[in-house]
Amino acid sequence: MALTAEQQQEIEVARDGTAATRRPTVPALEALLFQAIPVLDHGFVRVVDYMGDDAAIVQAARVSYGRGTRAANEDRGLIRYLMRHRHSTPFEMCEIKFHVKLPIFVARQWIRHRTANVNEYSARYSILDREFYIPAPEHLAAQSAVNRQGRGNVLEGAEATRVLRLLQEDATRNYDHYLEMLNEDEAGRKLDETRSGLARELARMNLTLNTYTQWYWKTDLHNLFHFLSLRADPHAQYEIRAYADAMMGMVEAWVPNAAAAFRDYRLGAVTFSAQMLAVLRRMLTGEAVAQESSGLSKREWRELMEALGRAG
Amino acid sequence: MALTAEQQQEIEVARDGTAATRRPTVPALEALLFQAIPVLDHGFVRVVDYMGDDAAIVQAARVSYGRGTRAANEDRGLIRYLMRHRHSTPFEMCEIKFHVKLPIFVARQWIRHRTANVNEYSARYSILDREFYIPAPEHLAAQSAVNRQGRGNVLEGAEATRVLRLLQEDATRNYDHYLEMLNEDEAGRKLDETRSGLARELARMNLTLNTYTQWYWKTDLHNLFHFLSLRADPHAQYEIRAYADAMMGMVEAWVPNAAAAFRDYRLGAVTFSAQMLAVLRRMLTGEAVAQESSGLSKREWRELMEALGRAG
Amino acid sequence: MALTAEQQQEIEVARDGTAATRRPTVPALEALLFQAIPVLDHGFVRVVDYMGDDAAIVQAARVSYGRGTRAANEDRGLIRYLMRHRHSTPFEMCEIKFHVKLPIFVARQWIRHRTANVNEYSARYSILDREFYIPAPEHLAAQSAVNRQGRGNVLEGAEATRVLRLLQEDATRNYDHYLEMLNEDEAGRKLDETRSGLARELARMNLTLNTYTQWYWKTDLHNLFHFLSLRADPHAQYEIRAYADAMMGMVEAWVPNAAAAFRDYRLGAVTFSAQMLAVLRRMLTGEAVAQESSGLSKREWRELMEALGRAG
Amino acid sequence: MALTAEQQQEIEVARDGTAATRRPTVPALEALLFQAIPVLDHGFVRVVDYMGDDAAIVQAARVSYGRGTRAANEDRGLIRYLMRHRHSTPFEMCEIKFHVKLPIFVARQWIRHRTANVNEYSARYSILDREFYIPAPEHLAAQSAVNRQGRGNVLEGAEATRVLRLLQEDATRNYDHYLEMLNEDEAGRKLDETRSGLARELARMNLTLNTYTQWYWKTDLHNLFHFLSLRADPHAQYEIRAYADAMMGMVEAWVPNAAAAFRDYRLGAVTFSAQMLAVLRRMLTGEAVAQESSGLSKREWRELMEALGRAG
Repeated sequence: MALTAEQQQEIEVARDGTAATRRPTVPALEALLFQAIPVLDHGFVRVVDYMGDDAAIVQAARVSYGRGTRAANEDRGLIRYLMRHRHSTPFEMCEIKFHVKLPIFVARQWIRHRTANVNEYSARYSILDREFYIPAPEHLAAQSAVNRQGRGNVLEGAEATRVLRLLQEDATRNYDHYLEMLNEDEAGRKLDETRSGLARELARMNLTLNTYTQWYWKTDLHNLFHFLSLRADPHAQYEIRAYADAMMGMVEAWVPNAAAAFRDYRLGAVTFSAQMLAVLRRMLTGEAVAQESSGLSKREWRELMEALGRAG
Repeated sequence: MALTAEQQQEIEVARDGTAATRRPTVPALEALLFQAIPVLDHGFVRVVDYMGDDAAIVQAARVSYGRGTRAANEDRGLIRYLMRHRHSTPFEMCEIKFHVKLPIFVARQWIRHRTANVNEYSARYSILDREFYIPAPEHLAAQSAVNRQGRGNVLEGAEATRVLRLLQEDATRNYDHYLEMLNEDEAGRKLDETRSGLARELARMNLTLNTYTQWYWKTDLHNLFHFLSLRADPHAQYEIRAYADAMMGMVEAWVPNAAAAFRDYRLGAVTFSAQMLAVLRRMLTGEAVAQESSGLSKREWRELMEALGRAG
Repeated sequence: MALTAEQQQEIEVARDGTAATRRPTVPALEALLFQAIPVLDHGFVRVVDYMGDDAAIVQAARVSYGRGTRAANEDRGLIRYLMRHRHSTPFEMCEIKFHVKLPIFVARQWIRHRTANVNEYSARYSILDREFYIPAPEHLAAQSAVNRQGRGNVLEGAEATRVLRLLQEDATRNYDHYLEMLNEDEAGRKLDETRSGLARELARMNLTLNTYTQWYWKTDLHNLFHFLSLRADPHAQYEIRAYADAMMGMVEAWVPNAAAAFRDYRLGAVTFSAQMLAVLRRMLTGEAVAQESSGLSKREWRELMEALGRAG
Repeated sequence: MALTAEQQQEIEVARDGTAATRRPTVPALEALLFQAIPVLDHGFVRVVDYMGDDAAIVQAARVSYGRGTRAANEDRGLIRYLMRHRHSTPFEMCEIKFHVKLPIFVARQWIRHRTANVNEYSARYSILDREFYIPAPEHLAAQSAVNRQGRGNVLEGAEATRVLRLLQEDATRNYDHYLEMLNEDEAGRKLDETRSGLARELARMNLTLNTYTQWYWKTDLHNLFHFLSLRADPHAQYEIRAYADAMMGMVEAWVPNAAAAFRDYRLGAVTFSAQMLAVLRRMLTGEAVAQESSGLSKREWRELMEALGRAG
């Protein structure tokens, strides 16, 4: 399991305590607070703190766009307007902090989102846990033949068995050698009194990229939506999408109006270029436009047809 | 007064409401929450939301620096260690949101701190209030003769009277003309049915830089400390320092250990260059070092003497 | 004129000097380098340095997306692909530095773009020039009656004359009083030996928001495109759009492929929400959809009709 | 060797070409441009582009601090003043772009510096090279017994031999299995026509953290100095310090005045807390202060004695 007994107990103690606050408070998110949602085989994500709610977005927008917005819009409509027109600063007024356990190769993708605050567990000072990500058989995808960045079919039979065995064996052996080089067990107890043990900051280099790490990750709602728009997308690698999907559920508990606007205007939206728009207008007059007569490249034509739900 | 009756009532309603939360909560800051602390003649600053506390800094540091820190340090010592060694990321785990009313020329200095979230009242959409900053007589400083960036003595007599009158008259006249050009009163009611009125986004250009604006400003504790280290400093312009001083009091209520460490290791600290350190070592052996024999420029020598509390 | 004779001469000296470099160099931008393009009545914008070119974007994309991109795409197509799919990091590899002279109320909008480096002329240390923005008669717009954020018709006749006179008189009077309070002339010479003069950091508060300031502003191409997408947009205030339009011309000289892709996929593009897409698909089957049967709000329906070039 | 023959030839072609530019140009850095400086066993760092020079810092400072600075300071003195007083924005006017080849565990430390632009070679799309960092025997440090974050003595004899063999064998085996799972050789040629091959984005998880990656990394001089102040420091891990030291040499060729000021006022400087300053003042009067009578904690006392070059 992802959480140690000690961690699980800390979470329960934290969940038991409540205090009175004058701050904006969201009961639906309070109900989830501190609870670890399992992701992948040993990972998790949990909300450990938050600031603001749907009303805080509205409050910030109203100071920016003036008194008049009060009469003209109810809150939900104003939030949808802000999302549609990419008025992003009011969404920055909400902040959330997650505790995440994730494989190192996922952490390397994740950290590319720079506008966030991070404290990662340091293998320079501490010993990492003996936990590696091994894909479930249904996620053991082949390289896509048509698309360098996507996955193809799932591996099967002997090839799948061989891959799973290699991943398991190599990660385990490298971890065992990591401890041997450290001359320590997982709890930091010395193994052999006659040896010095390699420095932790060096020994960690023997670990594989599917080893789990963990961190606190804090960001504002605007930047979280940007993260989710890239990572909850079907083109994202499955392993990071699994985290994004879990986080999306938490965002829906936290700021339901903003989350719904995000689904409609960002996740489910499509941007058409000036050329695509011109094609679209011709099609709406009843003209039968083909790629050759469209002025679009083949790739753009394919993207347009996909967006319109056509075979192309 | 800085706050309208309507705003004052909203604050009281907000202060009356409390909710139960599982989040870290700081009673001393809760006691101050939403209350406007007056700054300058018509300005204020108030905390409208916060996330985290001293313990959140410690929690983040421990995930980064490992289990070992638990035994070795109690919380206060760990926070002081982090501050002393500029390990800044754990302080980023705390977040605070202020509502501020301030003159535009102060807002222009403030906004240079880029790592913050801001929603400012927009004179493009709304009519600004008839409020201008007029310095109190004791802050009516002359230009310093020795230091281009500092203030000299306080103006007195006829010169002071004249300055105060000019500031008051020019701001008032320009505001009156602003409304006239808008063809609106302060509440947005049309003045003269036969005129169109200039666009708000244009009319505002007639206002003076001491006109008040307001914004929500949200930042993390690390960046707030950076702001305070520059703006609560004696070299900062008095008008922004007045805000920084008020905010420092709020930080002390919020994160007392971090605030004390900040006072000791940042606000009250001095950095010595390699050359200054060499001079210091010579002085500590009993050698009588003078500027000429120090290897320091006159300006650096003066800075060193000041730091050591000597006449120079 | 916006530039002093001294500045104009410095520019000519700078333009005369050339050096040999191994860096990527863009002759079309070199031809413009240092030259001030006039904007508004006393402002200008000029490029004072740059780094990278279209090829630098391609080079960065190829290290990220691998060797395969070399065969599959020629440069122009790759840049268009990156722009269409918002792969923004390769555009961050190009950097540009502008010197801009602009009214303070424009500077206040501009500075909200935080991901840039800025050094502004400081009225705390120096005396500002006697230059104010006064709109040309054709830009003297009335407040829009239908849209709080837009401009309406142009003011005419007596109202226009009155507005122009007020703007001119108030700015001039306030500037004269600024110098009087400083007890200095524009060149910093003392006026009256018997007076101290108010500190510069205080006297500036008497200036109006149409006074000109200047700064160096440096940003990367991705963030510049974000700036231009908001500020070269018809919804932007005319006064900042005038700067954005001038800068767009410089970007076209600098990175012609990226600039063309930006025009097609950002400036001229439209984003349709999930609901709009559903309506579009129904329309393409030949169904006559009206707002009432569309599931869209009136405002969204109007936005959709506009994008499709229909009356609505 | 770190560079392939193909890369080496590209570098030579790039170095052969020169163009005329009006931009600030630094001959000493031009002489180094594109050349790869070897770091560790297979890594390198090279400058591929730059913007600005010492004079650009001065130019930006003068627009900020006004005309007066022209007379009062020559350039070198002004740069030293800016560095001493942490006026950081003028240093942001210079920009530099590096191409770096580095082990993944070093890249993970490096990326924590968020204010930079990065394009990394992606193992999602491309096959990584068969290159791993194996420490030289003199860098095979034991864990420090006194300081969790430092290294102790160098491992020797059988323990050293064993560690080097494990690192080499595990990295090699895992890389071989990586290719086997991919069903590709290093050049991307299919190995076995009967197998699909695992997706690249998955197979990479089997690699060890000492595998080399590469990236373009671009930042401004202020943020580069911040990076160097942390990573060229004796407390930094040796492997990242090796890169920082190589980069420091390039900075010295690029902006000699700024680099010297950085050495004096940042790398070689020490910050004393309010309490340390008080102790220092007592010592300068001749008082013999001991830790017990100092008011400092033992750790702070030790830090003070170290800074003063005393045994403590």
